[in-house]
Amino acid sequence: MGEIVTMGEMMMRFMPPDYLKFEQAKSFEVYYGGDESIVASSLARFGLPVSYVTKLPQNPFGEMAISSLRMQGVDTSFIARGGKRIGVNFYEKGISVRPSKVIYDREDSAFATAVQEDFDFDAIFSDAKWFHVSGITPALSESTCRLTEKAMKTAKSVGATVSCDLNYRNKLWPVEKARAVMPRLMEYVDVCINPDISLGLSADLFRGEPDVERYQEMFGQLKKQFGFQYIAATLRSSRSASDNGWSALAYDGSRFCQARRYEIHLLDRGGGGASFSGGLIYGLYTGMALEQAVEFAAASSALKQTINGDFNLASLEDVMQLCAGDTTGRVQR
Amino acid sequence: MGEIVTMGEMMMRFMPPDYLKFEQAKSFEVYYGGDESIVASSLARFGLPVSYVTKLPQNPFGEMAISSLRMQGVDTSFIARGGKRIGVNFYEKGISVRPSKVIYDREDSAFATAVQEDFDFDAIFSDAKWFHVSGITPALSESTCRLTEKAMKTAKSVGATVSCDLNYRNKLWPVEKARAVMPRLMEYVDVCINPDISLGLSADLFRGEPDVERYQEMFGQLKKQFGFQYIAATLRSSRSASDNGWSALAYDGSRFCQARRYEIHLLDRGGGGASFSGGLIYGLYTGMALEQAVEFAAASSALKQTINGDFNLASLEDVMQLCAGDTTGRVQR
Amino acid sequence: MGEIVTMGEMMMRFMPPDYLKFEQAKSFEVYYGGDESIVASSLARFGLPVSYVTKLPQNPFGEMAISSLRMQGVDTSFIARGGKRIGVNFYEKGISVRPSKVIYDREDSAFATAVQEDFDFDAIFSDAKWFHVSGITPALSESTCRLTEKAMKTAKSVGATVSCDLNYRNKLWPVEKARAVMPRLMEYVDVCINPDISLGLSADLFRGEPDVERYQEMFGQLKKQFGFQYIAATLRSSRSASDNGWSALAYDGSRFCQARRYEIHLLDRGGGGASFSGGLIYGLYTGMALEQAVEFAAASSALKQTINGDFNLASLEDVMQLCAGDTTGRVQR
Amino acid sequence: MGEIVTMGEMMMRFMPPDYLKFEQAKSFEVYYGGDESIVASSLARFGLPVSYVTKLPQNPFGEMAISSLRMQGVDTSFIARGGKRIGVNFYEKGISVRPSKVIYDREDSAFATAVQEDFDFDAIFSDAKWFHVSGITPALSESTCRLTEKAMKTAKSVGATVSCDLNYRNKLWPVEKARAVMPRLMEYVDVCINPDISLGLSADLFRGEPDVERYQEMFGQLKKQFGFQYIAATLRSSRSASDNGWSALAYDGSRFCQARRYEIHLLDRGGGGASFSGGLIYGLYTGMALEQAVEFAAASSALKQTINGDFNLASLEDVMQLCAGDTTGRVQR
Amino acid sequence: MGEIVTMGEMMMRFMPPDYLKFEQAKSFEVYYGGDESIVASSLARFGLPVSYVTKLPQNPFGEMAISSLRMQGVDTSFIARGGKRIGVNFYEKGISVRPSKVIYDREDSAFATAVQEDFDFDAIFSDAKWFHVSGITPALSESTCRLTEKAMKTAKSVGATVSCDLNYRNKLWPVEKARAVMPRLMEYVDVCINPDISLGLSADLFRGEPDVERYQEMFGQLKKQFGFQYIAATLRSSRSASDNGWSALAYDGSRFCQARRYEIHLLDRGGGGASFSGGLIYGLYTGMALEQAVEFAAASSALKQTINGDFNLASLEDVMQLCAGDTTGRVQR
Amino acid sequence: MGEIVTMGEMMMRFMPPDYLKFEQAKSFEVYYGGDESIVASSLARFGLPVSYVTKLPQNPFGEMAISSLRMQGVDTSFIARGGKRIGVNFYEKGISVRPSKVIYDREDSAFATAVQEDFDFDAIFSDAKWFHVSGITPALSESTCRLTEKAMKTAKSVGATVSCDLNYRNKLWPVEKARAVMPRLMEYVDVCINPDISLGLSADLFRGEPDVERYQEMFGQLKKQFGFQYIAATLRSSRSASDNGWSALAYDGSRFCQARRYEIHLLDRGGGGASFSGGLIYGLYTGMALEQAVEFAAASSALKQTINGDFNLASLEDVMQLCAGDTTGRVQR
Repeated sequence: MGEIVTMGEMMMRFMPPDYLKFEQAKSFEVYYGGDESIVASSLARFGLPVSYVTKLPQNPFGEMAISSLRMQGVDTSFIARGGKRIGVNFYEKGISVRPSKVIYDREDSAFATAVQEDFDFDAIFSDAKWFHVSGITPALSESTCRLTEKAMKTAKSVGATVSCDLNYRNKLWPVEKARAVMPRLMEYVDVCINPDISLGLSADLFRGEPDVERYQEMFGQLKKQFGFQYIAATLRSSRSASDNGWSALAYDGSRFCQARRYEIHLLDRGGGGASFSGGLIYGLYTGMALEQAVEFAAASSALKQTINGDFNLASLEDVMQLCAGDTTGRVQR
Repeated sequence: MGEIVTMGEMMMRFMPPDYLKFEQAKSFEVYYGGDESIVASSLARFGLPVSYVTKLPQNPFGEMAISSLRMQGVDTSFIARGGKRIGVNFYEKGISVRPSKVIYDREDSAFATAVQEDFDFDAIFSDAKWFHVSGITPALSESTCRLTEKAMKTAKSVGATVSCDLNYRNKLWPVEKARAVMPRLMEYVDVCINPDISLGLSADLFRGEPDVERYQEMFGQLKKQFGFQYIAATLRSSRSASDNGWSALAYDGSRFCQARRYEIHLLDRGGGGASFSGGLIYGLYTGMALEQAVEFAAASSALKQTINGDFNLASLEDVMQLCAGDTTGRVQR
Repeated sequence: MGEIVTMGEMMMRFMPPDYLKFEQAKSFEVYYGGDESIVASSLARFGLPVSYVTKLPQNPFGEMAISSLRMQGVDTSFIARGGKRIGVNFYEKGISVRPSKVIYDREDSAFATAVQEDFDFDAIFSDAKWFHVSGITPALSESTCRLTEKAMKTAKSVGATVSCDLNYRNKLWPVEKARAVMPRLMEYVDVCINPDISLGLSADLFRGEPDVERYQEMFGQLKKQFGFQYIAATLRSSRSASDNGWSALAYDGSRFCQARRYEIHLLDRGGGGASFSGGLIYGLYTGMALEQAVEFAAASSALKQTINGDFNLASLEDVMQLCAGDTTGRVQR
Repeated sequence: MGEIVTMGEMMMRFMPPDYLKFEQAKSFEVYYGGDESIVASSLARFGLPVSYVTKLPQNPFGEMAISSLRMQGVDTSFIARGGKRIGVNFYEKGISVRPSKVIYDREDSAFATAVQEDFDFDAIFSDAKWFHVSGITPALSESTCRLTEKAMKTAKSVGATVSCDLNYRNKLWPVEKARAVMPRLMEYVDVCINPDISLGLSADLFRGEPDVERYQEMFGQLKKQFGFQYIAATLRSSRSASDNGWSALAYDGSRFCQARRYEIHLLDRGGGGASFSGGLIYGLYTGMALEQAVEFAAASSALKQTINGDFNLASLEDVMQLCAGDTTGRVQR
Repeated sequence: MGEIVTMGEMMMRFMPPDYLKFEQAKSFEVYYGGDESIVASSLARFGLPVSYVTKLPQNPFGEMAISSLRMQGVDTSFIARGGKRIGVNFYEKGISVRPSKVIYDREDSAFATAVQEDFDFDAIFSDAKWFHVSGITPALSESTCRLTEKAMKTAKSVGATVSCDLNYRNKLWPVEKARAVMPRLMEYVDVCINPDISLGLSADLFRGEPDVERYQEMFGQLKKQFGFQYIAATLRSSRSASDNGWSALAYDGSRFCQARRYEIHLLDRGGGGASFSGGLIYGLYTGMALEQAVEFAAASSALKQTINGDFNLASLEDVMQLCAGDTTGRVQR
Repeated sequence: MGEIVTMGEMMMRFMPPDYLKFEQAKSFEVYYGGDESIVASSLARFGLPVSYVTKLPQNPFGEMAISSLRMQGVDTSFIARGGKRIGVNFYEKGISVRPSKVIYDREDSAFATAVQEDFDFDAIFSDAKWFHVSGITPALSESTCRLTEKAMKTAKSVGATVSCDLNYRNKLWPVEKARAVMPRLMEYVDVCINPDISLGLSADLFRGEPDVERYQEMFGQLKKQFGFQYIAATLRSSRSASDNGWSALAYDGSRFCQARRYEIHLLDRGGGGASFSGGLIYGLYTGMALEQAVEFAAASSALKQTINGDFNLASLEDVMQLCAGDTTGRVQR
């Protein structure tokens, strides 16, 4: 059984090929993903035992979501089956001055309508050392909000570390709602990733080029307010839909560690944030020092953004090599 | 404004390419279609003025559905915009002994949740000579059931001919429900196409190879019961998912006319039935004798099944040529 | 009927996929386009009533050209049918230090051989407020040269504004010929777009990086010489076949307005110039101030160059958003 | 230098993929071919020295036509370069009851406008043992008609065998014109392939299922009239656009030899006729008895119709194996 | 751990798309498969616990082979890693009169050079109830021949049933070699599938249309000679590379059971034989009567041949439905 | 017969499309190439007579390798046939911070196992003016090492110029081995291209940004040590897997000539080095001054890296145009 547990929703992502606009698409590439499933697949690929908890419909798309995880080595034995449909998101990949666009069609999905009886949390967490969830999961429905709290509580009760990637999505819930829920859930959280407006922070912190000094100040305040063991955030400089700067900042209450900055020509930025969470958890779980962990997480998520699809298919060796500083892209023979 | 009016739901159809199974699909071809929109596009391509009534969401997929109709020359000016989503169906094309499979994800679509206030029926029908609808439309929701009746009534009130393709779908409503509704709607119907169990007929009439004698007997009974002007049905012999026989039978109360039988190597059987309706309406609307009209309808729908996608892109000339008896497939230089 | 009229030739564009050279292509993507048809489709997409005038052959390629316009909402009712063939151009998309290449095969096309009797100019212009044409149209043949003058005259006679994008193409006619024709046509023109050597200007103005000061001086001289109401030109900095700077300059006789400069990673630069014309006409037609109009036109045509195909499929909302200054390419959820 | 000489026009063939109709095609597959070039490539692949004579434009498409021949081992050193364009044909592959369609756009091609000065016939035929041409070549233009006669004369003057595949195309010239030319050219011909209405035969001989008895009678008359050494024709039974019967009949003035009949599920029937000519020439040139030669030709051309593109890529070994009677399609490991 | 164990080699299969010949292929589709892995994946998909034993290189292709199995639910924990390369086979899919062709490039593969120390047979078989292997495995090398015998012995020692699909491949070893090995291995075998010339049978039994009477006689002799519990064979009628008849015969020493005959329009016949083995093992393992088991195996393998790739992706429900007799290919909505 | 002779191994290159990782590839694009074959094809395309010597298996992949050369105009008449297999390399194209990866599967290839008897060196070199080989050829096997020396000797004996591109590959042989062989072979070499560690140079010369001064110093030493007529090397600045700087340095014993520096957005960097050799040989062979030759070589190889596949399909005209200084990528109409 997995010693790291993650829980969330998996969706089909439909994406027009070749930078076509939605209006031009005669076909859509399809990927299976979702925040926590990306974390799970990263950890499994890096060699850690990890289990993913969700609910998926009894149809070929539910099957595919599961087998795409199994393929990566994720334990899927706690996934519940049933419900009406799998959530869908349409993704139009932007380029240059044309931004990417996302259209959600995920209401009434199997997981959004899942209930506590679908999961045996005692069994799921019987051997857990770590639990990870994103702020998307409680945002899906009242029911998944309760599931999130229940899972966090159970995780804490068995002594597991709890990490949460805030990841506020205004299409899922209004900020007022998020602010009523997320701060309360923070009481269970040890590792806070990408704190955002759902914790009450000001929106202008997240506009334009990230300002490291203001981030440090904000991390300090959050540490005081919530007592997190670690706080970490990615630093994305969006120069265009094709080219981004990428770094990260982490804090353990005493030191701030900032990762090397990568200039990324994006192939598929989807899953970049979740890959950061996956990398950070890998680093902390395997006992890296914070500065190494944040470098590992930044390198891992930089690589993800040069790989098509939701999952981060970079290998441990690939990440280590990039961490070691080789960004020249020379051919590896 | 169009003199033929049709009303129904348009969906996105997602289909794996190259006869792949759902589980194998890394991409899906996408088509926009739906029973009555296929009828509308056929009629527009054949040169008749036709308007299509539906409701579609304010997003690129709604746009595409509309522009795919406009491309064929259908009047789209009465299409309402709004609602949550466009209906979706997943279609796995079968081959040989492996049947095709359809998975619906069409609940809560814009049209299924449309209401009377979305449409100005007086304007829509102000110049109408013909109204066509399928049994799928009332099956979608209570609301579309009321819309169907309202449209039929309005059509009759302006003296338009009303045609209905029964097209019972058990995934949309139980047979008891359909039998409570469809016979009642038949009072407005002049041209009854593909009568089925929703009119109370026995299911075994439609199993296996169609039995023309039993169909004739059934047509006779329906004529008596409902007083239709014309009754017509397609006769499909499913030898495998790849090869079908195809013919049709029509009745005007005095004569039975059976169309030539085609042996079709199927490219995409989707839309075959609706293309038959389109062909039959074209024939009757332009004043063909019933035997010509049913031949035209059969040829038209046979050709459809050799064309990819929902819409019947055969031209009037193509259909006429096949009607004239040339099935040798010799190259036309 | 459309209140904006455009006239020109539509061609099939054959383009090897994936940056292949002509010699490598086992298949060609096909697009339908042509300068004025791009202007027409832009205006229709932005919501203005627009009609496109041309002649196309009675074959499926003529049909496709028409339905591609109808799809975008352009009025195609004045398009004549007949003639031998549709014009073709082969387009090899360059990358980095490898330039794009165009091979024309457009001689004897339906439109190039069209005559005045193919069009009822009185009907076409009965409701016209604006007429747009490019310098390509008179360059095609003696006959289209006469058609252009006739159309301009008719437009003026009904009080319509006339715009012309000079767009000199040396493969279509020698510069001497162009200089004998274009200045004469300028007498009908109110809005002069992209003035070039066909008006007698020196070729070295258009070599290398555009020099805004020299452009301003040139605009001043043209104003004096031809009395245009507005003069506008795009400013393209070709750093490579993949990366261009993009801006624009406009002049109303008193003020010079220069648009924001975009750094574009090109997806398909084809149609950039025509999209600028479309954007400028939209701005002026809807009453924007010149500085807004030129910003709108520059943003609109910048976006076009990140979209595959000839037509500018950017929506009004997309253009407005880029005009508002967001070039970060952040995901729009 | 090649000992077998062929002459004709090469075209680009544009074909929609996946049985799409012209109207649906977003891309076209491209093949280079043309009757005599198919003969040439067949002979080169079977190992005979063969040269192909044509004229092609100085552009990448001319290059590609040539390199596609060179790839197969055809001697291209006598191909003239220049002229305006390469001829084009659009090919819509039919299926089942939907026939294939061809649209020519080949006027004013480089070869159609070629003149005698483009070719040094003395050099071309200095080492020739056989010359082959189809009836398409003289049909292209007055000029190619003269070239054909000149080539035939030169071939006869060096003692070469002359074969001609009649291949009448009514889109290229009216039957009266063909009948004024082709019988006259027959005086140079030793091997007459696929005699047709251009020799004055009745059109109804070629309608519907081929009638072997009437073919034999016709062969007898032609033998008397023109004194051919051999007469041969393919026998195609067009059951549909997907399934054809295929056989052939040959005659040497004393015996009629009929090849085995193949039932072919067509992949691409284009080039079937020319592959028959190629196979027949191979057989006769290498000294096979007529019954073997016609079997070889029939097998060779049957295989062609299961191969995509114009050229017959079957190997000598493939043809021999089919000739030997194995039509079971068992996997060859 | 799996209760059914299979062992063999997995290869990459490279296949030109769209029925292209090897010479035409600009790209190859790639599938991972191999006889016993197909059996394993079938059983896992049908819900049985199954483990697959092989050796694969430490590279991405080895990874992919493993994850393709894990995706289907096969236990891959006993797969050894190392060696030089993964075996490759090139597969040209035939059509109609053109046969499929296979080119092996599998020498020196990781599994062919594996040794006993790579596997812990005691652990592998500790919980085994069934062991399956094909005749390909001992044919690969002296080493795999020893591995096969060792595995069979270990299986028998724990009381597992042993099945073997003979599957003689003359490109792997000469028939004399096979006849020196395979009969000796039969002493461990309970279920003999597709007996062939490697057991000393005459080659002409397997030429042309299978003769059921001669098969029955042959089964009787094998029963006597080797004492098998069950003998079964598929009956393939190769009418062409596209269309095959398909049935099967099984024998338990007292009764002969012949499965329904399917007429299959082949999509991909690869893996048909192994799917039969998979189906038969499923039937016998789950306690079906022999007539049911052979029907299940025949239906299962018929479906496989309508599915692209090596693995049989038909679901248990799909097979059951076909077994129940519905071969009409009607759409399943 | 060719006056320039090259010798080496051709491989199939399998490359995932669309920047997919090996693990994601459902298909592989295939290219035929190999260092010296790229040189040969470049020279043939530029119009020089060139012959390529290798050994290839008697199968369709050997055929394709040969016809891909014949297509470009290379003389293939000295290519030996036979052996077990064609060498394969798998190439994962990197992007941005993700490097490209190469996996070789080329052991026991036909050429690696070729012997002297496969080639008639006297005939091959009877008319030779130039011989080119890379350091990969002797690295393949003991046998090809002897073949290389034999070829160099024969070339010198007929007075041909000998060029060698060192191109050390540590996956083919250890540096000690290379250093025992390559310096010895240098005695036959006139033109030394890309000297590397196999000549005893320090590895750190080739790490990071190339240092022109140190290169000049190194060239001077090599000149003294080996007496080369010319020494040349490419200067690649790897900023990322997508963007490289590119220049070159040449030396004739008195002057150092450095080519213009190109900033290349890479489409396919494979074959860049060999294209440089091809360009340099073209320049020197046709009598360009060294500064022109190195500019030609740099421009030629810069263009290659914007073209997919192994061969440099840039035309002489394309290279000349880039040499002339136009790097703006403006459309060539």
